[in-house]
Amino acid sequence: MGRLMTLIIDCHGHFTTEPQYHHDYRKAQVAFAEGKGARPEYPGIPNEELSEIIAANQLKMQQERGSDVTIISPRASGMGHHVGDADVAGEWARVSNDNIKRIFDMYPENFAGVCQLPQTVEGDLAPVIAELERCVDEGFVGCNLNPDPSGGKWSAPPIYDPWWDPLWQAMVRLDVPAMIHVSGSCERCLHTTGAHYINGDTAVFMQLIQGDLFERHPDLRLIIPHGGGAAPYHWGRYRGLSMMLGKPTLAEHLMGNLYFDTCVYHQAGIETLFKVVDRKNILFGSELLGAVKATDPETGHPFDDTKRYIDKLPLDEATRHAVFEGNARRVYPKLDARLKSQDR
Amino acid sequence: MGRLMTLIIDCHGHFTTEPQYHHDYRKAQVAFAEGKGARPEYPGIPNEELSEIIAANQLKMQQERGSDVTIISPRASGMGHHVGDADVAGEWARVSNDNIKRIFDMYPENFAGVCQLPQTVEGDLAPVIAELERCVDEGFVGCNLNPDPSGGKWSAPPIYDPWWDPLWQAMVRLDVPAMIHVSGSCERCLHTTGAHYINGDTAVFMQLIQGDLFERHPDLRLIIPHGGGAAPYHWGRYRGLSMMLGKPTLAEHLMGNLYFDTCVYHQAGIETLFKVVDRKNILFGSELLGAVKATDPETGHPFDDTKRYIDKLPLDEATRHAVFEGNARRVYPKLDARLKSQDR
Repeated sequence: MGRLMTLIIDCHGHFTTEPQYHHDYRKAQVAFAEGKGARPEYPGIPNEELSEIIAANQLKMQQERGSDVTIISPRASGMGHHVGDADVAGEWARVSNDNIKRIFDMYPENFAGVCQLPQTVEGDLAPVIAELERCVDEGFVGCNLNPDPSGGKWSAPPIYDPWWDPLWQAMVRLDVPAMIHVSGSCERCLHTTGAHYINGDTAVFMQLIQGDLFERHPDLRLIIPHGGGAAPYHWGRYRGLSMMLGKPTLAEHLMGNLYFDTCVYHQAGIETLFKVVDRKNILFGSELLGAVKATDPETGHPFDDTKRYIDKLPLDEATRHAVFEGNARRVYPKLDARLKSQDR
Repeated sequence: MGRLMTLIIDCHGHFTTEPQYHHDYRKAQVAFAEGKGARPEYPGIPNEELSEIIAANQLKMQQERGSDVTIISPRASGMGHHVGDADVAGEWARVSNDNIKRIFDMYPENFAGVCQLPQTVEGDLAPVIAELERCVDEGFVGCNLNPDPSGGKWSAPPIYDPWWDPLWQAMVRLDVPAMIHVSGSCERCLHTTGAHYINGDTAVFMQLIQGDLFERHPDLRLIIPHGGGAAPYHWGRYRGLSMMLGKPTLAEHLMGNLYFDTCVYHQAGIETLFKVVDRKNILFGSELLGAVKATDPETGHPFDDTKRYIDKLPLDEATRHAVFEGNARRVYPKLDARLKSQDR
């Protein structure tokens, strides 16, 4: 038997190379939401420009770094669910998601899409579910769910609260997973990508321990990005706290439904992740192009070129296949179907 | 040359075995602060009872686990800086600190003291500094500083803000360090010991990257507990973010003044900490008796018996000595003086 052919699927990519007029539109929209200006109209990114932006950035880096497919979603820090009402959030999600759809339609072999949800602090889930349905209908394979639409104030109920159930039911019905991903921080004390992101991951992991979300929704699948926040480093703490709360083991309670990506930007961190977390729960991801765009002077390679760290681990072929391809196909069945329709 | 004799100094212990009437007093004090009752009087813990409680718990576990000296402070989750005004916070800190002083006076070879500060959401630092001065005068060797007296709302300025300067100046003048330690969470989404503690550590680490605190206060020493929150696991992320912010390396910018304890409750986590962080920045700690009071069924030992994990590492004698004793003497000069006065 030869080596298994493995597709390299990056589950965590963002469209973070938007042209300036896209940001200008959002700025005007935020002003409108704050009663400070007229409602702007989205200018749209011409086909040729969008295609060139992707070719020069995400696609180029995909090829340089040796991955095959990137699951791409709108800029996470830009979702800004704390801004405006359902109307504004809905329009912002729609134009952002439409760009993603155009990207995965332009480069169908290189990208699959994950959508932004029009969440608000106010919190009505009906328009959120409607946008999810629209996007799945358009070919998206999952969504990004913000557990804290208030941007650091944690004003929404914890994700084990039945308040969220209609959304989980829609996700299960549509057979799509969610990546749990906060957006920009509104708190001066909480740096967006250095504190709020990682803290959001950690907070949700603990919420999942406290609750019974997967007992109530056994077919739900969630991904906690950034290597699971602080969870793998503090795995013993979480195992102990689970026992103190009278919960089943993490393996029984959570790890049938919960996945971590590999957005951890150094060798020792990736080693911890693989030492602590079962291979069936790890999905390759790099945030491309994401939070940390710098080259590590110690290695000469970009911090977020996470495939290099994984390639250095002494993984058996089955583990490598699971982390780079198999798990993603299982967690995102619509991605699997899309790949199969391409004879991959 | 034989082995260096090494004292085992645990930098992170709490008096978490208070009698019920201590908790009842606090409950009445909180009610008073909320305008719901009369001002209670602290009942005091009789000498014999306090001595027995410590002998049966902290001292017993110290001996069982093979440590020599524990730096003990009041229960961290009980500090409750979000409750009441400076008057209430001051009284609560005083009675809590007085218990700690009695413990380290009763068992001078086994304990040293770290004090609780009477911080408030309102934030006046004058009474905080006064209580710190009183405690250092009474023989305390450091303090616990809450970077978020609001209990999850992060309403205080980030710790690099000059607003905090009078406190840093007092600490430098008194030659005592602070352990950065949040208290109980007021947010339903943020579990106190599973999310708020770790997130507080992570948030402050990122604040330190953003600011220039140690450039402005070169003699200040801070300890981030719980193994540095998520920082060591995400060391590459923080190195990259530092570069993007145009800051010096972590080693230059922070690690001359910043220390992490070893309150990480599994072997793989401790290994990460020692792989990533220089030995001069690691202080042995166990939270005894702390957040996780359970026995790991996989090892048959308590999760928080962190000395076992360290003992399993292939450390050279100089590293072992630094982590268990030398660093603590350097970071807490008043502990060093206390030990020397005991011919240790």
